[in-house]
Amino acid sequence: MTSRRPVPRDPQNDYTREQAATRRDFTGADLEHVGSYSFDPAVLPGNIENFIGVAQIPIGLAGPLLVDGEHAQGEYYVPMATTEGTLVASYNRGMRLLTESGGVKTTVVDDRMQRAPVFILDDARQAKELAEWIREHHDAIRGAAEETTSVGRLIDIEQYHVGPMLYLRFDYTTGDAAGQNMVGRATSAACEWIAANHPGHPRYVLSGAIDTDKKHSQMNVLRTRGKRVVAEATIPADLLRDRMGVTPMQLFRMRQVSQAGGILAGSANYGAHAANGLAALFIATGQDAANVAESHTAITYSQLTDDGDYYWSITLPALIVATVGGGTGLPTQRECLELMGCYGQGRVKAFAEICAAVVLAGEVSLASAVLAGDWVSSHERLGRNR
Amino acid sequence: MTSRRPVPRDPQNDYTREQAATRRDFTGADLEHVGSYSFDPAVLPGNIENFIGVAQIPIGLAGPLLVDGEHAQGEYYVPMATTEGTLVASYNRGMRLLTESGGVKTTVVDDRMQRAPVFILDDARQAKELAEWIREHHDAIRGAAEETTSVGRLIDIEQYHVGPMLYLRFDYTTGDAAGQNMVGRATSAACEWIAANHPGHPRYVLSGAIDTDKKHSQMNVLRTRGKRVVAEATIPADLLRDRMGVTPMQLFRMRQVSQAGGILAGSANYGAHAANGLAALFIATGQDAANVAESHTAITYSQLTDDGDYYWSITLPALIVATVGGGTGLPTQRECLELMGCYGQGRVKAFAEICAAVVLAGEVSLASAVLAGDWVSSHERLGRNR
Amino acid sequence: MTSRRPVPRDPQNDYTREQAATRRDFTGADLEHVGSYSFDPAVLPGNIENFIGVAQIPIGLAGPLLVDGEHAQGEYYVPMATTEGTLVASYNRGMRLLTESGGVKTTVVDDRMQRAPVFILDDARQAKELAEWIREHHDAIRGAAEETTSVGRLIDIEQYHVGPMLYLRFDYTTGDAAGQNMVGRATSAACEWIAANHPGHPRYVLSGAIDTDKKHSQMNVLRTRGKRVVAEATIPADLLRDRMGVTPMQLFRMRQVSQAGGILAGSANYGAHAANGLAALFIATGQDAANVAESHTAITYSQLTDDGDYYWSITLPALIVATVGGGTGLPTQRECLELMGCYGQGRVKAFAEICAAVVLAGEVSLASAVLAGDWVSSHERLGRNR
Amino acid sequence: MTSRRPVPRDPQNDYTREQAATRRDFTGADLEHVGSYSFDPAVLPGNIENFIGVAQIPIGLAGPLLVDGEHAQGEYYVPMATTEGTLVASYNRGMRLLTESGGVKTTVVDDRMQRAPVFILDDARQAKELAEWIREHHDAIRGAAEETTSVGRLIDIEQYHVGPMLYLRFDYTTGDAAGQNMVGRATSAACEWIAANHPGHPRYVLSGAIDTDKKHSQMNVLRTRGKRVVAEATIPADLLRDRMGVTPMQLFRMRQVSQAGGILAGSANYGAHAANGLAALFIATGQDAANVAESHTAITYSQLTDDGDYYWSITLPALIVATVGGGTGLPTQRECLELMGCYGQGRVKAFAEICAAVVLAGEVSLASAVLAGDWVSSHERLGRNR
Repeated sequence: MTSRRPVPRDPQNDYTREQAATRRDFTGADLEHVGSYSFDPAVLPGNIENFIGVAQIPIGLAGPLLVDGEHAQGEYYVPMATTEGTLVASYNRGMRLLTESGGVKTTVVDDRMQRAPVFILDDARQAKELAEWIREHHDAIRGAAEETTSVGRLIDIEQYHVGPMLYLRFDYTTGDAAGQNMVGRATSAACEWIAANHPGHPRYVLSGAIDTDKKHSQMNVLRTRGKRVVAEATIPADLLRDRMGVTPMQLFRMRQVSQAGGILAGSANYGAHAANGLAALFIATGQDAANVAESHTAITYSQLTDDGDYYWSITLPALIVATVGGGTGLPTQRECLELMGCYGQGRVKAFAEICAAVVLAGEVSLASAVLAGDWVSSHERLGRNR
Repeated sequence: MTSRRPVPRDPQNDYTREQAATRRDFTGADLEHVGSYSFDPAVLPGNIENFIGVAQIPIGLAGPLLVDGEHAQGEYYVPMATTEGTLVASYNRGMRLLTESGGVKTTVVDDRMQRAPVFILDDARQAKELAEWIREHHDAIRGAAEETTSVGRLIDIEQYHVGPMLYLRFDYTTGDAAGQNMVGRATSAACEWIAANHPGHPRYVLSGAIDTDKKHSQMNVLRTRGKRVVAEATIPADLLRDRMGVTPMQLFRMRQVSQAGGILAGSANYGAHAANGLAALFIATGQDAANVAESHTAITYSQLTDDGDYYWSITLPALIVATVGGGTGLPTQRECLELMGCYGQGRVKAFAEICAAVVLAGEVSLASAVLAGDWVSSHERLGRNR
Repeated sequence: MTSRRPVPRDPQNDYTREQAATRRDFTGADLEHVGSYSFDPAVLPGNIENFIGVAQIPIGLAGPLLVDGEHAQGEYYVPMATTEGTLVASYNRGMRLLTESGGVKTTVVDDRMQRAPVFILDDARQAKELAEWIREHHDAIRGAAEETTSVGRLIDIEQYHVGPMLYLRFDYTTGDAAGQNMVGRATSAACEWIAANHPGHPRYVLSGAIDTDKKHSQMNVLRTRGKRVVAEATIPADLLRDRMGVTPMQLFRMRQVSQAGGILAGSANYGAHAANGLAALFIATGQDAANVAESHTAITYSQLTDDGDYYWSITLPALIVATVGGGTGLPTQRECLELMGCYGQGRVKAFAEICAAVVLAGEVSLASAVLAGDWVSSHERLGRNR
Repeated sequence: MTSRRPVPRDPQNDYTREQAATRRDFTGADLEHVGSYSFDPAVLPGNIENFIGVAQIPIGLAGPLLVDGEHAQGEYYVPMATTEGTLVASYNRGMRLLTESGGVKTTVVDDRMQRAPVFILDDARQAKELAEWIREHHDAIRGAAEETTSVGRLIDIEQYHVGPMLYLRFDYTTGDAAGQNMVGRATSAACEWIAANHPGHPRYVLSGAIDTDKKHSQMNVLRTRGKRVVAEATIPADLLRDRMGVTPMQLFRMRQVSQAGGILAGSANYGAHAANGLAALFIATGQDAANVAESHTAITYSQLTDDGDYYWSITLPALIVATVGGGTGLPTQRECLELMGCYGQGRVKAFAEICAAVVLAGEVSLASAVLAGDWVSSHERLGRNR
């Protein structure tokens, strides 16, 4: 490589097979497979810059998974893009058990996306005064925000004080988009309105870091980011024993142990491995894989029923998904969404419910495997370690 | 979809184009692009089950990025697989600034992968006794663990007490593999040895949840999971002003604000958006994208130098990467690693250093953009929001 | 001691010197000093059971401390009850510096006390429905709650979903009382009203643990428990140098280091030692010392001013204090409150401001001492280690 | 009050009744009860400065509590200093149940006190080199540390990297003292040795904030600060029902709910109210009440036994207590320690065990009361709210 040469770019017409090839050649590396893709790069503006080709991530099909949601109803086959052996097989096993148990009940209990600016005042007293002023001018501020978007709706402006600063957390519904850009524009307009209309013309920065974009946070666990979804199932004791080789009481006792372990470790997730299922779904369906950071957090809550069956729930407080925008419209991504009937307008809550149901399937499968003692050996059998 | 039909699978010969096509047909969906891939599915066992095709994730090329590591030395062009517009452009901008500033110094300060079993005793006193016994038998336990692997080396057995339980955290070096399976097998053997040789034959479960596999945790921040890498750079004041439109003092003041915001929110990451760069790198190079959950955590530490320049460091305490095994050997993934000279044996620390340097480039770029006020507008200009 | 004898108690007339002496005798121990107290035990019902005497905790006087609050105005002498050598001297030193710097600006930016019941439904969908119903019946629920109290005002009912549960966080203002009992009664009445009037007659438990009573939590940091108070001061560079032997830049650089340390450790407090000052104030003034658990959390935010001075703020998000009720009316406790003009109705915010100002004094003193290198030696000189 | 007058102090002879009276007069306030104390102020140097008198905190006697520890054996009557009505009664009720259940088994599973300096290098590579050098010179460093103390023993030097910094956590056993000052001196000597003998003469600050002195932290939960103590008991189902009005299954179901609540809130304590019992014990016995901040953290772990009884454990990972030094030798404080046979050398682990047993008694009592529905009403009956 010659030193310090910028990557070639054609300002006029950069999204072509030729330009991609030029850049691949520029690297001097063999990028034959990267250069093998099935679509016209003209679809890519807004998704990538300096395009050179594609990563081909294998997709496995799992299912059927019976979902009883408010939006997703029926049996779903789920495309999972991963390179980790046993992952699809494990989720598949959990899906079978849950489907045989009567399916997964799913509920989107909250829905809000944020941009969180910070106003920096001279002292806390000014910040307190501004906080009051913003409460009083809520409608006008909402108006300014919503003027920038036909979809987004401002549902709350949370206020947090530290020192002379007022952190605001603007919460929006964003339709079927994940909405990070939409809420950024809207909040920018709202802040401009505040800065222009408040007599002190206070300074602000559009993010004071409490939106925790692309980051896990306790804020997200408490206050929701994206969709807050609950997936629940009650697994009959005999089915659990026959299919998984464990009893409800064994699972329940182990739950106490792993919950204590999670608390000890200060974990972001008190279940088993939500990130696995979510990453595989996100990559397959054009979600932003960086949002695994936020979305992987989960709280598990279980009980033994009076009948001795096992009630199992998982709550995902920060599931960030979309069925329009971002990568959802790219060729393979759209096909995978359509396979689940989840592409386009009006589908995002159904998709969120399927995500949560998939996560629960993975929990059931791995937790059982750990207890039944075949976890490592299943890696041995199916995984790379031969 | 017909109800409850399992996904077709050929137990003898499942990794063929024909089987993949059979499964695509089974879904009844149009999966033309998913079915477009450039390699023989025979390479896939150990990476996927129920293969139907691929997700094609666009890759953009960023760079050059000058890295001054112990293992990575020189200028790198970096393949980033993402569907989020402006991401590659933003990282590219940061890379240019850092390269012009003299490059990024990178250091792998720790390296350890875990499996963390839990022994469940009758009471805390038994757990205390077992803890002592394990310390006394450390060499024999290490022997049992290392017999299962030619690569893994047991470097520590951490002990944590809760109630009647003894949580152990086995730490290994794992060569150029991420090593989760390797350390699982080794720890299983170690636990079997303990259970067989301790007079009380104590019960254990192979994971007590404190390995926090596929989860962020404070444990990881403190005690390292995978590579602990530091990337550092000192950016001259005039360069920062000319290229980014901000001064060191502005950045430094804003750092105080966003640090307070991160603390307020209980964030897993006190920088800007490590998950973005890591997810894009992970997908391009066959890393496990689920590990974004662990890897995205970071601590930023900055100072104004006596000369008025800006010293910037980011510490990634739980970066999980590999240059062998997992998805690294698949066609596009391997090409992307080779593009950076990072495929295969003896390359993992160089790759870890590049990852950290890329993250720092993204920090510099986004933090500056936020302050210079063009953050939202750059999304407007390059992103989907047209 | 004879086995299993209950402590003697006179159901009719238990709060007398005689009964206290009977119990002291019962122990067989020498409790001469414990038995030395200056008041009639008849004042004690509601504060203690099985009274045997008192702990005599030495009180030192610190000050003057100049406070510029919305409620506290002027110079205060502060009684601090502690047995830790150097504590009073150290706070005294900080008070002098702050007073010479022009005093401490204090602001109570939020004020709310909680009881947080949990409703346990059959599934998340029922919980979602109940959440909606509660929002619709907010006024009636508030009415039921406020019927139990002439002081408490319900200002918010926060809602949090996990699995099939709806956690509610009832926020009240509680006048000059700390208010835990007041809000317990009011919330109990509110829950009874919900359980009676909602058609499903849902089950609840009065605490679902998210009030985090007597516990630190990120919830408290974010959402306030008790008073959220900010104390701020700008310390001139020359004063800092002359009195403390450090420069603003030294302090500011060290702030970056200790902030990173706090983040690394997952600390509840990013300052130096708020618990020291608060515990001493709480014990002297009849606050509930157990609330040090909640109250000690703090966020420090500092900046170098354009003039090179040091702006220093501390935010206490969960300061729980009272000037009526609890132990505030007991003899020595009341005297200490009166010494600061803070006993009784209408004084709690002034007292909260003084508490925050005292905490800031301690921060300034200890942080400077650590840097100036005399921290250990000051313990040597004044402390027990002779 | 005249402006800005310092508190009167006699450099030669300050610890007298006269000087205390002079200062009380100086305030102009009525401090009659504060001025009523039963001992000679000459005992106070090393415990307080600017002494004016005492806070008289009522002490109630609870017990007996049967403890089956490694160090505490037998039935104990426990002095609790508090002003919160119902606290002593509630703990008393729990003690009775636990004693009737066969007592509380207690185990000190770890014991270590810290001072945690930070070395600040030019870059991470230097920090890595220093880390290695310190491991190699461990014995000499320990020698330098231990030269300052006849009691303290250095048992570990933990290392944590962030940016160009190396945080060290020096762990010591400190005999029967809490030991914060002892380990401060020892670590100072160790750091001086490092700075003098390492060729780079690296800079350090004696606290980099990860000792989290007087602060809760996840670090403490994981790595222990002070004593790590477990208290365990198995409560027979019939006893629980008869005495508390709840069944093991009710308690166990509620445990799942409150555990989820604690996780949601990001709580420092997953039990009920450890801070209550600890604050009362600490004040009575001359412990540093500020350490409630660290000590109140706890992990609860419970199981239903095969017999249907309730196994209950609480783990206190950061219990900081002493039976010598600090306030333990003051008159009422020493009497209270002696009442439990816990004053002086060789008693600290017994005292730590009693503390943990007391905490468990409080958990049992409050958790049962919440479920049995008399929690609020018991406050009504005994507390201030008449």
